[in-house]
Amino acid sequence: MTAIAFPVPDSAILARRDEIVAGLSRLVPPECLVTTENERRAFETDALTAYRRMPLAVVLPRSTAEVSAVLAFCHREGIKVVPRGAGTSLAGGAIPQEDAVVIGVAKLNRILDVDFPNRTMRVEAGVTNLAITGAVAPDGFFYAPDPSSQLACTIAGNIGMNSGGAHCLKYGVTTNNVLGVTMVLVDGTVVEIGGPAMDAPGLDLLGLVIGSEGQLGIVTEATVRILPAPEGARPVLFGFRTSEEAGACVAAIIGAGIIPVAMEFMDKLAIEICEAFANAGYPLDAGALLIIEVEGSEAEMDATLARIVEIARAHGVETIRESKSAMETAAIWKGRKSAFGATGRIADYICMDGTIPTGQLPLVLERMSEIVASHGLRVANVFHAGDGNLHPLILFNCNDPVEQEKAERAGEDILKLCVEVGGCLTGEHGVGIEKRDLMTVQFNPTDLAQQMRVRAVFDEDWLLNPAKVFPLEGRLPIERRPHA
Amino acid sequence: MTAIAFPVPDSAILARRDEIVAGLSRLVPPECLVTTENERRAFETDALTAYRRMPLAVVLPRSTAEVSAVLAFCHREGIKVVPRGAGTSLAGGAIPQEDAVVIGVAKLNRILDVDFPNRTMRVEAGVTNLAITGAVAPDGFFYAPDPSSQLACTIAGNIGMNSGGAHCLKYGVTTNNVLGVTMVLVDGTVVEIGGPAMDAPGLDLLGLVIGSEGQLGIVTEATVRILPAPEGARPVLFGFRTSEEAGACVAAIIGAGIIPVAMEFMDKLAIEICEAFANAGYPLDAGALLIIEVEGSEAEMDATLARIVEIARAHGVETIRESKSAMETAAIWKGRKSAFGATGRIADYICMDGTIPTGQLPLVLERMSEIVASHGLRVANVFHAGDGNLHPLILFNCNDPVEQEKAERAGEDILKLCVEVGGCLTGEHGVGIEKRDLMTVQFNPTDLAQQMRVRAVFDEDWLLNPAKVFPLEGRLPIERRPHA
Repeated sequence: MTAIAFPVPDSAILARRDEIVAGLSRLVPPECLVTTENERRAFETDALTAYRRMPLAVVLPRSTAEVSAVLAFCHREGIKVVPRGAGTSLAGGAIPQEDAVVIGVAKLNRILDVDFPNRTMRVEAGVTNLAITGAVAPDGFFYAPDPSSQLACTIAGNIGMNSGGAHCLKYGVTTNNVLGVTMVLVDGTVVEIGGPAMDAPGLDLLGLVIGSEGQLGIVTEATVRILPAPEGARPVLFGFRTSEEAGACVAAIIGAGIIPVAMEFMDKLAIEICEAFANAGYPLDAGALLIIEVEGSEAEMDATLARIVEIARAHGVETIRESKSAMETAAIWKGRKSAFGATGRIADYICMDGTIPTGQLPLVLERMSEIVASHGLRVANVFHAGDGNLHPLILFNCNDPVEQEKAERAGEDILKLCVEVGGCLTGEHGVGIEKRDLMTVQFNPTDLAQQMRVRAVFDEDWLLNPAKVFPLEGRLPIERRPHA
Repeated sequence: MTAIAFPVPDSAILARRDEIVAGLSRLVPPECLVTTENERRAFETDALTAYRRMPLAVVLPRSTAEVSAVLAFCHREGIKVVPRGAGTSLAGGAIPQEDAVVIGVAKLNRILDVDFPNRTMRVEAGVTNLAITGAVAPDGFFYAPDPSSQLACTIAGNIGMNSGGAHCLKYGVTTNNVLGVTMVLVDGTVVEIGGPAMDAPGLDLLGLVIGSEGQLGIVTEATVRILPAPEGARPVLFGFRTSEEAGACVAAIIGAGIIPVAMEFMDKLAIEICEAFANAGYPLDAGALLIIEVEGSEAEMDATLARIVEIARAHGVETIRESKSAMETAAIWKGRKSAFGATGRIADYICMDGTIPTGQLPLVLERMSEIVASHGLRVANVFHAGDGNLHPLILFNCNDPVEQEKAERAGEDILKLCVEVGGCLTGEHGVGIEKRDLMTVQFNPTDLAQQMRVRAVFDEDWLLNPAKVFPLEGRLPIERRPHA
């Protein structure tokens, strides 16, 4: 990683800024166009705040038709475009570049239709994750993926990154919960992909689009699946002496075929940080904590918990504490979901997002500590253990460039370790700019070339979010044979 | 539909047959090459037996390297290739063409690795669906998707068609249960897509490959997810007076948020046909039957069933019969899974595979009867009701060309109805040749063009299974601009 490179801005585009802004102002009303330096500053970074670039202009269209008009204009003029949800990307997925126009979905925020009999819902792409659940919660339904940023993040961003969350162990991630989208291609063409039925014939372009990080088009509407809320849910705290014991317990629970709705891990430092923030009753004497949530009827929860407790005992659990009230449950989840914010109160951090086969958890936890210690830094671990999705938070001081570089190197070593044990670079945060240059660790040149050739079908000129996902070096000037 | 057209064979290729066979014989040993007319006849059709074409030759490679060598040869020589699993496609997905070489996976039938802690398994692509479960059943695990042809069909074919089955309502279809594949591209390049971890960064090529009907490459190995077998499972028969009542009951169960592991529908004719074959105890006095299976602990099954029974009573159920033994359970499922074969004993049939939003079931069941009756034919309905995946079996006499055409027209009208109510042409059988020319009903030219442009990235010259999925008319001669 170490000082992520941005491409050199295209000076011809920079020189045409006034003309481009004038062109955009013919397509959307003034309240949808952000051009002053002060206002643009709000868009110059996302949740990877160590990096920032001022965009050429920001457009906030109010309809699919406006998105189409703006994209058609940019495509015609050869202007790069950075799509933006709520700007909560931890991987720098929404960081602009100086010669690019940002297209944000903030004004596409209407709920279009709720269809309870078919358990689907149609929303504009700028609706926040939590607002989707909010709209159907009174009727006893919810939208399952629940990123910690769910209060702010949009379904557009969730689709771009294939976002997950604590409760995805049972319910799957975004790609398992979105049934269809309206998407505007780079030249302004509007396509419908997927739909309310379970599957569509032909190629699965929906799966391709979900997780494509704004490189294939801009999604303006989505049909999502909604699920009935469970009868009851109960998080239970399991305190262990060591991270390795807790990791082995997770592997054993999954290996036994039990799938709790959530299984979250915190190490000692994370417990201290989160408890100080949320007063959730986390055991401060434990070396590692698992928050395991079960759901269903009381009898069902009791039966599942009994099996989990038995396995935990065999792995040396020291404390077991069940939530006894809705307030306790809320505090337990508030602590977990605020972990990144709470960590930010005590230090700067970068958050990794590697995923590993759960059987490798004990080994990887041990080697991660060694890696971070070898760089003289501290790490707080808080992550979705059940699906092997790690979130080590490497702490450093961002005013010390040497320490920042050490943190980035430690993060790089951790991600390489994840790939080495059969895992991958990212579980739910996406590649963005953060892991772009590590894609060569995961994929060989043939695999990467095949992905880039598919990308080029949607965006031949690399105008859409072009500095992200694929290493800047070695991008395909695709060979094109004239067609026979 | 009405008399599906095959492309005119390339006479230059036909003239070179001896030379092509000689070339293939240098790549694989004699026992892997099928060339005599008698032996080739076994490969001239699949389960869409109304159509057949004799292939140029059939190759049955024993390794990824041999598949690669054969594909590279065919690509270099411009020879079309039709990939083949077990030849159980109901949509004609594996029907050859005269100027094409069939590459079958029959000899790729080894189980490579079972990893219980991570709940995954690695198999060669010719392993049958049931053999996957067979290998892990002694340890209490299973592979979830269960097409009725599971005794014969291969995981390669399941991946090609994104196959489902009765129990996919709860566990998802192939795309939710395959984690990675080794695939040979048309030019012989071997790529690894996905892997044992839950997700991979970059574009979701795995989702794209699953359901691509042998048009993007040939899969030679797959990593699949295995699941712990439930504590218990119990199918229950619910007899209704009319199909419309049963359909409304299904919609109400799904609308209430209950997800049984399976929810199968049979109308009166299907009940008669299947009961005569399997002696499963289906209620012969009922106008429609639902087989609803619940699973889990006894308490869990009782609780779920109580809610289902309540809804069924509100929809006028007349008979309720629970399976009381493993033998009864086996008979109930044998009857359902043999439905197509049992129907074949009394008449020829074509089997549709449209999918609709479950809320539309009552309406669609009524209109389907009208459609088939208007063509003077009979229909037996037996299908996965829970996920809205219809399988009307239209009965006809295949020795009467007028009746065959009527049957195909009725099928076409039914599929158009499915699309009209917000559903789609195929749930689990694929497009194949059968529904190829109906793709224009589902997709507009822009949507189809985008799919074909993605397809062309993998197979620019349309060599892989070229007569399938996309209408023969209007195929893209893709515009290629020389790269800047």
